[in-house]
Amino acid sequence: MADNKKSDIEQQLEQYRKEHEKLKLLFDVTRNISRELVLDRLLMLIMDQVKSVLNCERCTVFVLDREKDELWSRVAHGEKEIRFPSHLGIAGHVVTTGEVLNIPDAYADPRFNPEIDKKTGYHTRNILTAPMRNKLGEIIGVFQTLNKIGTAFNRDDEELLNAISIIAAVQIENAQLYEEQKKTFESFIETLASTIDARDPLTAGHSKRIALYADEIARVVNLDDSERAVLRTAALLHDYGKIAIREAILTKDGRLTDEEFKHIQRHPMFTRSILKKINFSRELRSVPEIAASHHEKLDGSGYPNGLREAQIPKLGKILAVVDVFDALTSKRHYRDRMAFEKVIGILAEGTGTQFDEFFVAAFKKIPLDRLVLVLEEENAERLDTGDLTLLSKYNTSDILRLPGSEERTPQQEELRRTFDRYYTRKYNGVEAAGSRTAGSRAAEGRAVEGG
Amino acid sequence: MADNKKSDIEQQLEQYRKEHEKLKLLFDVTRNISRELVLDRLLMLIMDQVKSVLNCERCTVFVLDREKDELWSRVAHGEKEIRFPSHLGIAGHVVTTGEVLNIPDAYADPRFNPEIDKKTGYHTRNILTAPMRNKLGEIIGVFQTLNKIGTAFNRDDEELLNAISIIAAVQIENAQLYEEQKKTFESFIETLASTIDARDPLTAGHSKRIALYADEIARVVNLDDSERAVLRTAALLHDYGKIAIREAILTKDGRLTDEEFKHIQRHPMFTRSILKKINFSRELRSVPEIAASHHEKLDGSGYPNGLREAQIPKLGKILAVVDVFDALTSKRHYRDRMAFEKVIGILAEGTGTQFDEFFVAAFKKIPLDRLVLVLEEENAERLDTGDLTLLSKYNTSDILRLPGSEERTPQQEELRRTFDRYYTRKYNGVEAAGSRTAGSRAAEGRAVEGG
Repeated sequence: MADNKKSDIEQQLEQYRKEHEKLKLLFDVTRNISRELVLDRLLMLIMDQVKSVLNCERCTVFVLDREKDELWSRVAHGEKEIRFPSHLGIAGHVVTTGEVLNIPDAYADPRFNPEIDKKTGYHTRNILTAPMRNKLGEIIGVFQTLNKIGTAFNRDDEELLNAISIIAAVQIENAQLYEEQKKTFESFIETLASTIDARDPLTAGHSKRIALYADEIARVVNLDDSERAVLRTAALLHDYGKIAIREAILTKDGRLTDEEFKHIQRHPMFTRSILKKINFSRELRSVPEIAASHHEKLDGSGYPNGLREAQIPKLGKILAVVDVFDALTSKRHYRDRMAFEKVIGILAEGTGTQFDEFFVAAFKKIPLDRLVLVLEEENAERLDTGDLTLLSKYNTSDILRLPGSEERTPQQEELRRTFDRYYTRKYNGVEAAGSRTAGSRAAEGRAVEGG
Repeated sequence: MADNKKSDIEQQLEQYRKEHEKLKLLFDVTRNISRELVLDRLLMLIMDQVKSVLNCERCTVFVLDREKDELWSRVAHGEKEIRFPSHLGIAGHVVTTGEVLNIPDAYADPRFNPEIDKKTGYHTRNILTAPMRNKLGEIIGVFQTLNKIGTAFNRDDEELLNAISIIAAVQIENAQLYEEQKKTFESFIETLASTIDARDPLTAGHSKRIALYADEIARVVNLDDSERAVLRTAALLHDYGKIAIREAILTKDGRLTDEEFKHIQRHPMFTRSILKKINFSRELRSVPEIAASHHEKLDGSGYPNGLREAQIPKLGKILAVVDVFDALTSKRHYRDRMAFEKVIGILAEGTGTQFDEFFVAAFKKIPLDRLVLVLEEENAERLDTGDLTLLSKYNTSDILRLPGSEERTPQQEELRRTFDRYYTRKYNGVEAAGSRTAGSRAAEGRAVEGG
């Protein structure tokens, strides 16, 4: 009887040990994933956790996109996402039926599609797939785990995966909410920027382009994500103050009077005072100051505050460079663009007095494919992939360093010809959108200046 | 020896049982709180969970506001928050030192401030207070639990509270992030709305006010939170399309030509096409349609689409009512407001052809204190609390039902006088802001019409 009791207790102990182990795993998974609100990173994290907890080779989370009736997934370490109709394959089966599917021998199961293994060279032995449900019981995705190490998936694995999927669903929905909110905010800012630009046909697309150029400089000088977010937002909104500038002056044909010019010069001040009213998140708190400083110059001759050198915020200095570059390469888009060397010459001339040397240099290091993608942003779908690959190996400094056309190697000649074709908008045999919106406005007399 | 072994196992079992119990509690708490991203609700939830897990009478979470160096907390079931400097009291002590404080006898401890008990009538016996740290180890708040039931807090409680505080910190930071983002978005929309309104001095504050009026109707007819969010956003942005209207026409003195009037009438269409570009979250997806329908009329004579009756979105019908009410009570604010009866008369006249009867009736049910708070939104701090309490007991229908001044009871007379004083902006002896921005513009010839 003592023996019976002992073995009872030992059984109970074993039971507790197992339960405890499982609960501890679950608790750790929960704690780890609850830290992540950025959807992409969250999905990666969940897949990693499940792989290690279930001791298997692969784990994929497929998220259900109800609007498109598709399942999508981020491939580990891959940049692209996989998408397919939500009724296809084993994942589709699980979404449709809501059943857990434990397939001990993939190649013996008719629902398994061996084509994917053929393509990837991977060998699938066994599969465990479970639906992921939110708190309302709705299926919001699927967990798919492959190749349990050393054996097949058992009932314990099914239970564990089920428990994890409940926790994961909560956090995935939180991250989706967060992401949705972020997207709304960003598209909102973009829409505003384009609305403002649209008030003056000469500046259409200006704010978007300078946000893109600025981000290229940010990449060259290695700014961190949060500075890039500030720079991008400030770039998109830098001209918002123009909403307070009288339209008659903003769109005036011919030379502006001094008074009119002074009125226009108030726009960065309006930008600041409007943006100051916005309750920006901690990360974006400096946006109003940065946005308002795009017309400051190193020598103190800029506006609105006549700041000098170190007084001008770093990100504002980036805006100053790209703002003028875009003004010079886009405002006059009803006729040929000013020669590229001349544009860069104007930047060079202002370096040290108007522009910060460091950021002018960084601008010249932007790979030419990226530069052309922004320059010809409105014709993006007409750019040739081969040409872009060629251009990606060079930057503006390389263009400036080219010898005269007589002395160029065939490679150098090809680089120059390719770049010029896009810069002058004479690619694809047809004239591109920019030059088609021709004529109409004679803004010749107007000071060449960014927005 | 067998006995020794048995007792070893039993001890181990006991240990497991205890650990298991604790882990299960933690897991449940984690799972429960991970569902909530709305900060207020999250804090309530955490406090409830801790109270039940620690078996004590009260639990308060104090959140550290680093910018103001204050601790704040939401009182259970209370509407207001408590705030105090972050170094004060026992919570302040814990924030400053980072120590866990377990006080078995509050009144014997010099750090305990008995004044609070005196004020609230509560009797504090014992206190357990622990710092809440985020993943970087920074203190982001404090947990304070009071009166362990039947005994004092022990080491197990300390450990449990510590473990919970780690989990809670993660989710509180997630919720703060979410909230911050939401606040940014909302203040952004408000800023835009006021920017648009500011282009035409006659409409200053219009969008904000109609958002407030619309929300009052929403309250009367019991719309749910998500409809109210749509209504509010659509109200704030309904005139955004005016950005595409030529300023010269928008601010023209004197009567508009037919052509000019037609141009202005395009603004709801512009509102829609601009807002359509925004990637609104699922909840706000209908904002562009609602915002664009504020000039539709039940009989089909409205614009931009000449929709009829059921074709007009419900929330658009609310906007139509409040848009006209605000136009009639504010546009001419440089002189006396149109008599209230006349304004309501115009709404009544249009009921059934222009306005939906249900929402006109709802408008008349808005308590008068709320109505006055919106009417005199720019003078909010000058409204008398006693007057507002009086007005809160009546609505527009009550005003319309009053007998002629000869036959009124003293109460009826007081109601009328009080309401009129605010409606005509002759309160506090001084003329209020609205009437001080007087004169200047002769927009007499302009059609009376909302924005």
